[in-house]
Amino acid sequence: MLKAFYRAYIDCLNRQDWNELGRYVADDARHNGRPLGLSGYRSMLIKDFEDIPDLRFTIDRLACEPPLIAARLLFDCSPKGNFLGLRIDGRRISFAENVFYEVRNGKIADVFSVIDKAAIEDQIAK
Amino acid sequence: MLKAFYRAYIDCLNRQDWNELGRYVADDARHNGRPLGLSGYRSMLIKDFEDIPDLRFTIDRLACEPPLIAARLLFDCSPKGNFLGLRIDGRRISFAENVFYEVRNGKIADVFSVIDKAAIEDQIAK
Repeated sequence: MLKAFYRAYIDCLNRQDWNELGRYVADDARHNGRPLGLSGYRSMLIKDFEDIPDLRFTIDRLACEPPLIAARLLFDCSPKGNFLGLRIDGRRISFAENVFYEVRNGKIADVFSVIDKAAIEDQIAK
Repeated sequence: MLKAFYRAYIDCLNRQDWNELGRYVADDARHNGRPLGLSGYRSMLIKDFEDIPDLRFTIDRLACEPPLIAARLLFDCSPKGNFLGLRIDGRRISFAENVFYEVRNGKIADVFSVIDKAAIEDQIAK
């Protein structure tokens, strides 16, 4: 159940179907402690796709236990300028994000995300 | 079942009970793609406790769905020298680790860990 919900959410992101985002994300959603709300959450994602034109979310691993969804996401993309404070300038990088979602009333209410910045640093140091 | 197993594993780490580690970790365990095996895994943990004398693993969130365990761990500790390539020098830092474990034949066989390095950078920049 949560798995199907989550796969549909990720598909919504990859389609950049921002009008549908409210089916998955709560009006008062928080992301890493920040009270973004649905509109701030949407703005964050739109900016991500602006900064990373070839952004695509790929689910590598998924463990669901209500009310939690835990996902390991893989990315293989080319941020245009800076990313996480690192100068990428269009180079292609690959990295993982391990992220927990707390689902309340059928929507994502709280997100705890960690991106593997050290892996990106290793790649751009080469 | 996996929850109790995982809590016992974390308790084993916090006790630094290295003789018991093989009850939880497979002989051919991998960690972030590295084929450490049980002995290499043990060595990694022993070094962690040497580098961070007040290291303690605290489970913040836990989602188990066989064969996966997904945990968000919180740390509040004082690494002696460098940590993740950052000069800490005994300062107290707090950070999260989001980590997936694949369990095979009742033991941790594969680990995919991401530590929130950006959060540590923010703290030491202050």
